[in-house]
Amino acid sequence: MSEQFEETYNQWNEFVHTQNAEILPEILSDEVKFHSPFVWKPKDKPETVLILKMVTKVFEDFRYTRKIFDDNLCALEFEARIGKITLQGVDIIEFGESGKIVDFKVMIRPANGLQALGEKMNELLAAKNLMQ
Amino acid sequence: MSEQFEETYNQWNEFVHTQNAEILPEILSDEVKFHSPFVWKPKDKPETVLILKMVTKVFEDFRYTRKIFDDNLCALEFEARIGKITLQGVDIIEFGESGKIVDFKVMIRPANGLQALGEKMNELLAAKNLMQ
Repeated sequence: MSEQFEETYNQWNEFVHTQNAEILPEILSDEVKFHSPFVWKPKDKPETVLILKMVTKVFEDFRYTRKIFDDNLCALEFEARIGKITLQGVDIIEFGESGKIVDFKVMIRPANGLQALGEKMNELLAAKNLMQ
Repeated sequence: MSEQFEETYNQWNEFVHTQNAEILPEILSDEVKFHSPFVWKPKDKPETVLILKMVTKVFEDFRYTRKIFDDNLCALEFEARIGKITLQGVDIIEFGESGKIVDFKVMIRPANGLQALGEKMNELLAAKNLMQ
């Protein structure tokens, strides 16, 4: 991984460990595209911040397992739990010339893990809308 | 990528382009574990060969988009079509000391792409069982 992306990558890991959401707007490019496991259409920066904040509340025992780096790209494989269901996924993160994250893609397996994540995310989104 | 894995990687690409299934038993370790996008439990070598043969019949316009290599691991992102549904996925391939593939993990997005793939695979498996 090039040095210019290393700081962003380290800050991402700090977010993963501390869940300090103030980090996110700093490391995401204003033009970031977030590709969720659920729908085709990419999300913009405010939506991405919201989703990443929510997802850290949904995943239990989240940990990265295998990591693959190549220039301005990395694939970070993870394992996590939602209740009794264990799931695996991958974050494919692309860094732009500014060093910030310009593309963030998430895929999840197996199917019951994807479903459990979808249900939890919908619950949280519904609760959030009720509070507004 | 280390040189010892390059031949296996090249043969994998030959399979992708030619769909010559005779290549598969050569490049898969006898102890290979295949992690499908659908179920947690890994598949063994005979099941893996069957699934990889079937999947090449289901995907239309399959092409790798971004590739990330790191020592004995690679993450190959792809895009494909099933009827009117476009999907993306990733093959995370791990090479063993013999140079052969020891671990093959597939994840798919978005959810309607995963569903379309599942339906097509079930159709093919049902047809195969009827023929036996």
